[in-house]
Amino acid sequence: MTEDFVELEDALVDLDRENRCGFSEVIYGEGKTADAIRRIALAQIERGIDAFATRVDSEKASAILPDLQKRAPRAYYNQVARTLRAPKPRAESDPALRRGKIAILTAGTSDLPVAEEARETALWTGADVVLIQDVGVAGPKRLIAKLPLVKDADAVVVVAGMEGALPSVVGGYVAVPVIAVPTSVGYGAAFGGIAAMLGMMNSCASNVVVVNIDAGFKAGYAAGLIAKRVAEAANGRAR
Amino acid sequence: MTEDFVELEDALVDLDRENRCGFSEVIYGEGKTADAIRRIALAQIERGIDAFATRVDSEKASAILPDLQKRAPRAYYNQVARTLRAPKPRAESDPALRRGKIAILTAGTSDLPVAEEARETALWTGADVVLIQDVGVAGPKRLIAKLPLVKDADAVVVVAGMEGALPSVVGGYVAVPVIAVPTSVGYGAAFGGIAAMLGMMNSCASNVVVVNIDAGFKAGYAAGLIAKRVAEAANGRAR
Amino acid sequence: MTEDFVELEDALVDLDRENRCGFSEVIYGEGKTADAIRRIALAQIERGIDAFATRVDSEKASAILPDLQKRAPRAYYNQVARTLRAPKPRAESDPALRRGKIAILTAGTSDLPVAEEARETALWTGADVVLIQDVGVAGPKRLIAKLPLVKDADAVVVVAGMEGALPSVVGGYVAVPVIAVPTSVGYGAAFGGIAAMLGMMNSCASNVVVVNIDAGFKAGYAAGLIAKRVAEAANGRAR
Amino acid sequence: MTEDFVELEDALVDLDRENRCGFSEVIYGEGKTADAIRRIALAQIERGIDAFATRVDSEKASAILPDLQKRAPRAYYNQVARTLRAPKPRAESDPALRRGKIAILTAGTSDLPVAEEARETALWTGADVVLIQDVGVAGPKRLIAKLPLVKDADAVVVVAGMEGALPSVVGGYVAVPVIAVPTSVGYGAAFGGIAAMLGMMNSCASNVVVVNIDAGFKAGYAAGLIAKRVAEAANGRAR
Amino acid sequence: MTEDFVELEDALVDLDRENRCGFSEVIYGEGKTADAIRRIALAQIERGIDAFATRVDSEKASAILPDLQKRAPRAYYNQVARTLRAPKPRAESDPALRRGKIAILTAGTSDLPVAEEARETALWTGADVVLIQDVGVAGPKRLIAKLPLVKDADAVVVVAGMEGALPSVVGGYVAVPVIAVPTSVGYGAAFGGIAAMLGMMNSCASNVVVVNIDAGFKAGYAAGLIAKRVAEAANGRAR
Amino acid sequence: MTEDFVELEDALVDLDRENRCGFSEVIYGEGKTADAIRRIALAQIERGIDAFATRVDSEKASAILPDLQKRAPRAYYNQVARTLRAPKPRAESDPALRRGKIAILTAGTSDLPVAEEARETALWTGADVVLIQDVGVAGPKRLIAKLPLVKDADAVVVVAGMEGALPSVVGGYVAVPVIAVPTSVGYGAAFGGIAAMLGMMNSCASNVVVVNIDAGFKAGYAAGLIAKRVAEAANGRAR
Amino acid sequence: MTEDFVELEDALVDLDRENRCGFSEVIYGEGKTADAIRRIALAQIERGIDAFATRVDSEKASAILPDLQKRAPRAYYNQVARTLRAPKPRAESDPALRRGKIAILTAGTSDLPVAEEARETALWTGADVVLIQDVGVAGPKRLIAKLPLVKDADAVVVVAGMEGALPSVVGGYVAVPVIAVPTSVGYGAAFGGIAAMLGMMNSCASNVVVVNIDAGFKAGYAAGLIAKRVAEAANGRAR
Amino acid sequence: MTEDFVELEDALVDLDRENRCGFSEVIYGEGKTADAIRRIALAQIERGIDAFATRVDSEKASAILPDLQKRAPRAYYNQVARTLRAPKPRAESDPALRRGKIAILTAGTSDLPVAEEARETALWTGADVVLIQDVGVAGPKRLIAKLPLVKDADAVVVVAGMEGALPSVVGGYVAVPVIAVPTSVGYGAAFGGIAAMLGMMNSCASNVVVVNIDAGFKAGYAAGLIAKRVAEAANGRAR
Repeated sequence: MTEDFVELEDALVDLDRENRCGFSEVIYGEGKTADAIRRIALAQIERGIDAFATRVDSEKASAILPDLQKRAPRAYYNQVARTLRAPKPRAESDPALRRGKIAILTAGTSDLPVAEEARETALWTGADVVLIQDVGVAGPKRLIAKLPLVKDADAVVVVAGMEGALPSVVGGYVAVPVIAVPTSVGYGAAFGGIAAMLGMMNSCASNVVVVNIDAGFKAGYAAGLIAKRVAEAANGRAR
Repeated sequence: MTEDFVELEDALVDLDRENRCGFSEVIYGEGKTADAIRRIALAQIERGIDAFATRVDSEKASAILPDLQKRAPRAYYNQVARTLRAPKPRAESDPALRRGKIAILTAGTSDLPVAEEARETALWTGADVVLIQDVGVAGPKRLIAKLPLVKDADAVVVVAGMEGALPSVVGGYVAVPVIAVPTSVGYGAAFGGIAAMLGMMNSCASNVVVVNIDAGFKAGYAAGLIAKRVAEAANGRAR
Repeated sequence: MTEDFVELEDALVDLDRENRCGFSEVIYGEGKTADAIRRIALAQIERGIDAFATRVDSEKASAILPDLQKRAPRAYYNQVARTLRAPKPRAESDPALRRGKIAILTAGTSDLPVAEEARETALWTGADVVLIQDVGVAGPKRLIAKLPLVKDADAVVVVAGMEGALPSVVGGYVAVPVIAVPTSVGYGAAFGGIAAMLGMMNSCASNVVVVNIDAGFKAGYAAGLIAKRVAEAANGRAR
Repeated sequence: MTEDFVELEDALVDLDRENRCGFSEVIYGEGKTADAIRRIALAQIERGIDAFATRVDSEKASAILPDLQKRAPRAYYNQVARTLRAPKPRAESDPALRRGKIAILTAGTSDLPVAEEARETALWTGADVVLIQDVGVAGPKRLIAKLPLVKDADAVVVVAGMEGALPSVVGGYVAVPVIAVPTSVGYGAAFGGIAAMLGMMNSCASNVVVVNIDAGFKAGYAAGLIAKRVAEAANGRAR
Repeated sequence: MTEDFVELEDALVDLDRENRCGFSEVIYGEGKTADAIRRIALAQIERGIDAFATRVDSEKASAILPDLQKRAPRAYYNQVARTLRAPKPRAESDPALRRGKIAILTAGTSDLPVAEEARETALWTGADVVLIQDVGVAGPKRLIAKLPLVKDADAVVVVAGMEGALPSVVGGYVAVPVIAVPTSVGYGAAFGGIAAMLGMMNSCASNVVVVNIDAGFKAGYAAGLIAKRVAEAANGRAR
Repeated sequence: MTEDFVELEDALVDLDRENRCGFSEVIYGEGKTADAIRRIALAQIERGIDAFATRVDSEKASAILPDLQKRAPRAYYNQVARTLRAPKPRAESDPALRRGKIAILTAGTSDLPVAEEARETALWTGADVVLIQDVGVAGPKRLIAKLPLVKDADAVVVVAGMEGALPSVVGGYVAVPVIAVPTSVGYGAAFGGIAAMLGMMNSCASNVVVVNIDAGFKAGYAAGLIAKRVAEAANGRAR
Repeated sequence: MTEDFVELEDALVDLDRENRCGFSEVIYGEGKTADAIRRIALAQIERGIDAFATRVDSEKASAILPDLQKRAPRAYYNQVARTLRAPKPRAESDPALRRGKIAILTAGTSDLPVAEEARETALWTGADVVLIQDVGVAGPKRLIAKLPLVKDADAVVVVAGMEGALPSVVGGYVAVPVIAVPTSVGYGAAFGGIAAMLGMMNSCASNVVVVNIDAGFKAGYAAGLIAKRVAEAANGRAR
Repeated sequence: MTEDFVELEDALVDLDRENRCGFSEVIYGEGKTADAIRRIALAQIERGIDAFATRVDSEKASAILPDLQKRAPRAYYNQVARTLRAPKPRAESDPALRRGKIAILTAGTSDLPVAEEARETALWTGADVVLIQDVGVAGPKRLIAKLPLVKDADAVVVVAGMEGALPSVVGGYVAVPVIAVPTSVGYGAAFGGIAAMLGMMNSCASNVVVVNIDAGFKAGYAAGLIAKRVAEAANGRAR
């Protein structure tokens, strides 16, 4: 019988998560000490889990990374995404197998940190990712030039601040679920992402769903879940 | 010396408005009785003013129109726009003179009443108006097919509810000031037009300015003012 | 060459939508006259499209349905969902082919109309649908009894008002994307669905994405799109 | 006759509070100087009151604690809770007497400071306290494992940020009043605790009442008041 | 083994609720048809449960009550509270046993419907209830005259709209937990109870907890739960 | 003929203000450089105006005060109020003349800075001021002890944060206009003074009017204006 | 010894109010039955109080007025103000005595009902009132023509909806306290008076204080209180 | 054939913008590194574009300016506006040609940074600009003295914080489109510019349109677009 959770000093680490939810528990770094993050990550690595932490600032990362690398040599920190990951050594997957495909778009260059968090998360779920930057609606030809990359994906993540119009426009061009991430980019009546969030919630495109403001992680996770199911189906493993 | 205002029972009608502001005072019908609207309109007609009232429901209009038509035979009611107008007989304007041009676009058919209010107002300011319906972002080819009409205008009014993305998209295509009108069309997190209003305020297109929710009148008025100045300049009459 | 759109009196019907977006254009009935809905639906039926309209009240439906049934005998109205559909006669699909599976859950019985709108939409996308009612968190054993049905789906739609906690709880149990629909069910500080919407946006479960308040249609559509891709992949037709 | 209040330089200290309200006045440290806190605490200690101050940062605490310890040797500072307390020497209470029991739960480890404030407050009221951490809804087995401790309490305090769903879930399992404390933990549409607060206000569990965002003190106080009444009743001293 | 829930046409009635939560499930009448309410209530009566429904308008009540009275002759409808109750015949409780005591106060006469809902709920929980009306802060002598009744209670429910100041004032006088119910009474910046709710959340009195706007039911329920525990303790039955 | 305004480098100083508005223009220090404040104050002193500046931090004050004192030896800075004033030398007023009387109350000691700003402003208007601190509603006997001082005033300023209940309570005891000042004191759902502001706007006491959050200046000014009119009337000088 | 309050069926009528607060208790008609209003008014008339009720719709008024007129023949209903008053027969006041003066201004004709409520209330307080309509900022000459009437008052009430700019403009012209009443007149982003309320709270004129949205009663009451004190002072009766 | 956009490391620079939109792309400096701004500006200078960047802090400006000046010797930084501009050497325009005229007004001196951003933008569009400071409504004579300068413009930009009343007042005096810019100047219920924004949206003057809070850039841009069209028309070049 497997353990359900492990009781650390100030956390109950969910070990049954991958079984229940498809992927293992992710460490939300905000408000946790470097020490707490290290403790949880090591407990996961020890149990063969591909440890992944978000919202980790570079100071904490510097304190944690060396210890992780002792146990997981491929561990790395993505400074733009503010994510820390300790990939488990994995057997090469069968090249004949299809892997899920995810496209991530940003409206402007300021949306990059959120998009990078989404990208790291999607990679952690095992998908192939293409990142397309700076295709906001004020310069329409840029998006149209990149559309073929988008149509080919299993799920699209669109990251945008200000009025958040890009997901609607993308949604009007593709037959793919669009996961919209409002960002806190903007000023004044942008209200830290509320304007973008409301815009996306009210999208006139039917295939647009929304996650929390700046929630690159959630978008990458949901996209990864969709891509995984499509790939499993293509590989004849859908449940 | 001209009168500055006329004191009716419960209103002070501003007679100096055209001199000061370019156009005469418009009657805001909401919350006024049919009787009060009639009184003000007749006072204006009497002084040679092209009387124009907005937010007049059809019941009030039926009560007022016959009386206006006695003095101003071309008076009419636009039921979709909910406007009442008593155009003064006007000398044919010189056909050699350029008239201002205004384009009005709607995202969806439910935005029509607001667009019609804008259209009636723009006509009252003396401009030529083209109305283009149902070119929302979910069907991008529709807008592109209509762009030439838009590029030709002195000012563009874009009427949209839900996420209010259309003005940003239009703004990215044209060298014309875009006056965005958020409408209360939508449900849930549309919050009666707040989502659209915030979207428009945060437009990434630099040429988008915004008026109040459902304020077709204001958009038509501001567009008319711009068109008038451009026409006057073209006719050699700019101040 | 195919038509891109057809220009009716007051609408531009997008004919290229299925090609671009996977499914044809859906008629949003709110704010449209019975006549306008009928006109668009007939234009679609004529072109072999499976016409589908949402937010149609029963009075409008009575006025429209007989005309639709003349051309599309299987046309019907779902009074709880307030949807009108004119399914095209379709060749029996190959029984060997997998169809997508969608589970729809409600927290309480008052959430049913929104769940029914989601169900009708998902059926229109071609998926198999199971609807599970009244499994809100105040009675935890009810959800647990129904979990096997949920785990089996390609996408889950969770419909909840009040504090909107159900998607988080469901999300913690399954490896399936959860599309949360906040409803306007509740009173006081529920603020017409805002509390539920915010709760869902802030879900601590990573696989929860959100659509607009009462947007059963959008949830059914996005779920249908996911299910379709999974089924196509399973059938060896993924792009 | 007892004093009702004592007039210090810039405060009127309420001495009649315990008589009226069951417990003595607590010092709200925010916005008060170290000097003011010390003055009030010493005035209380002098009159035999168990002085207790909340929202005291560690710098102020360092400045005050030594002076308090001269008069009240058991005085201490809890850095996580940011509380300062100078317990009065108390006669051992009769071991045969029942003491009230309070359970405090947190959804995540970031909620700990608020939970600790609640715990210190509850201890100050004289109750026995059990603190159960990190039992958020995303990992349901963790809560179920801890339920017996919760069912045994006279009042339960549930501390949660983000969507604030935990009180509803706990409320569905126990016959105990649940005092929910929304925390400012979260990001984006968490709006500094508003989402959690609204979620808790709209809880579908009937036994959930709510206090202010981050108000660990108030939750501990109200729980202590309930526990005290139950214990007094059990000891035959209820009024 | 007992049933956990019973599956009706469109509801899963929780039969284990009393065991788990102290009281049986209450029927929330809003958005349910008369038929659905009747069905659930009869299912409860059949199993010996004291059926209780809130938010039932008088039209539905008229349709349901006769059927309930056939099975539960003491069933009645309180029109001000809009509650329907079918008390089970109960053995006279031992007169030597203490029953819990609850005081309910209103700020103004317009708050009465909410207070009555609280009163009916508290009675259903088995407590003794005293209702004190119209003691708002603008006439301070009225409250002071009634204080002895309040001090004697195990829990106090304070119902107030407008600025919602009454709970703070009551809280400053008594050693009893105060459950504050904001009402939607007021106009303008009262915002349907938001002002009162925020006032109560920010109460400077430490013993004030809050429930949803107009949630008389929840206040009565939580007060009943507290009163029950105190009474059980006094009767030597506390767990 | 007097000057109407003086044009400085970046400000148009209104010299006609006292004539029009009863008191001279006050310098709002926020967002102005020390240099700009000095320039305006000196221009006023030069013209015999009692210069008064609010929202001046201590650093700016140190830079400005010495220069003011060269021209106005009684100039001083109140660090708690953050006001700077350069009283003009004034002939002793006739001791037989009545001066207006203002009472200023605070709910808690944290409200003092706002109360001090009100006090300085009221003194500048020429009124006598009594300041009563820390009489919040949680300790009701404190207010009652101080009521005679309040009843004697021409206008009362009540400064309170959190739920802002004190003005309602004071308003219920006195026949004097109550000017309520919400403060940003509080946390969580206090929302930086919004809760207090809404509470005061909805006060059930009829004599409560409200000014902006933390606007001690405005409250002192309006109170001073009332007190001045009453004193002038008493002195036989009312217009 | 006088009665402090009288206990009716569902109200405690405050009889000590005039003594404490300067004027007797006013009946807030909203949410009270005609019967309750009648009962309270008659209890007041019986005790020689000048009964005054606000927010009474015309249907209730018709039901109550005849009964009041039996006891108070001068009782009347003002349909625009929705107020009901039963003035007591009063001895002619000494013509040598000064009465307070109040000016009430409206921005537009739609603000009249609120202004009328203010006017009735001010008359009830015993002041002389002048009402000046339709002097909004869009027609600046209208206000300037009426300014002498405003400067002469003891207090000014300014009633405005939409952006609520009029109080600021009036405040810049007069040495009189300005009581601003935001109205719910407007549409879209007027948000039922919120825009006007916020505008008035942030007025750059120092002499502007604010009451609740549509609270003509409160403005009239506070203005009446100020005017009464000035008149009493002028008559040598100030306390 | 011209390039449509150029693909830099992290940005797609729109080269077709001037052709489509009348002016070239402007660099939004917020959230971009000095390096990214330099790269885009140099790419534009290289292609003969008049590079213009907003929201550039002085530290970034110091790092970039020297490099720009090597290629564009007239490049400069405006510290108040926080804009960076590299004007291209331009042939003297024909002195006989009319240039557009823009007037920019501020309510107070704290609004200057936003007004300077508008001024720099308007200059970049090629218009003549007059800046009029500190004419807020509390001192009405100041505005009236400056009106002739305003009436002469093709477009007026009005910059105001607090209650944002100035655009309404200006709008009532002129026949020119008024572009209102709410600023975040103010405190308390100013809510960082929301009060001003709402005030302007609800302006009773018909010629007022609004841009985002603190959006000096957008106001200058839209004004420049209008002025350009009027000048082109006057010069006989209107399309």
